[in-house]
Amino acid sequence: MTRTSRLEAGGACSIARSLTLLGERWTLLVVREAFRGRTRFAEFSAALRMPSETLTDRLGKLVDAGVLTRTAYQEPGSRERAEYRLTESGRALYPVLAALQQWGDGHLSGPEGPPAYLRTRDGGRPVRVALVDDEGREVSLDDIVSVPGPGASAAPGTGPGVGVPAR
Amino acid sequence: MTRTSRLEAGGACSIARSLTLLGERWTLLVVREAFRGRTRFAEFSAALRMPSETLTDRLGKLVDAGVLTRTAYQEPGSRERAEYRLTESGRALYPVLAALQQWGDGHLSGPEGPPAYLRTRDGGRPVRVALVDDEGREVSLDDIVSVPGPGASAAPGTGPGVGVPAR
Repeated sequence: MTRTSRLEAGGACSIARSLTLLGERWTLLVVREAFRGRTRFAEFSAALRMPSETLTDRLGKLVDAGVLTRTAYQEPGSRERAEYRLTESGRALYPVLAALQQWGDGHLSGPEGPPAYLRTRDGGRPVRVALVDDEGREVSLDDIVSVPGPGASAAPGTGPGVGVPAR
Repeated sequence: MTRTSRLEAGGACSIARSLTLLGERWTLLVVREAFRGRTRFAEFSAALRMPSETLTDRLGKLVDAGVLTRTAYQEPGSRERAEYRLTESGRALYPVLAALQQWGDGHLSGPEGPPAYLRTRDGGRPVRVALVDDEGREVSLDDIVSVPGPGASAAPGTGPGVGVPAR
């Protein structure tokens, strides 16, 4: 599937578009491993224990989508291999992973509690995902509305975004 | 799959656990529609145009996972139908959807721009997803670390969370 056809498959909604790429099984876990510093096929493979063909496919899709870059490296006496690194677009996925982690911490942890905490590097204070306004102040879910943007479509069933949170 | 076996399949990582439920095709779009105020099977079906069997499956899984509640309603002269509403756990998924929307806006929008914007209800100021500390101050990606929590596992390949962002 080309990038364009992937976008069209998502309709005029950025959530659907993101899920067309990121909702595929394993894809966000590959991105998680990239955030953890893995760069080589063998490292992703050892960490995720996923089928090699699937890993090849997901790395290729993430490169095509501009989330990872693929560069060649060669160690003396070895054949050339590929290294995968997050682009700025890839690093921009951090809030997606952090939001999934936060929700899992709160709603899918067993009695033993969350497997990990996000903390500030200096001081070790708790870090969480929040919705903030243009001055960085936190905004409550009840105070958010969704308005059509320039790329809105009138096609039925493809309305934009997450909408107005309903009680 | 029972809730417990789903949790185990995710290993000791809240991201993997969340994806085991939410990463399945259509599931987060069903949640998106619930945020848009849809409550009835026919409403979800008309909005998403997904196969009925799949919709039945996803609604059932979301109820089992405590994201939606299912209650019966009956209109005069009609048979009893089910209504699906977000629980508090379901409403806590808003940052996940908003983060996916934000990333899609920035990285998968066509030249026409984002399909929708999130705004404050009063004043219409831009709303975005951010990482904040315990005092609500925004934290940069470079200032975040991941530390093991009480539910951390020593099993290889199941390390917790998104880790330390690597450059």
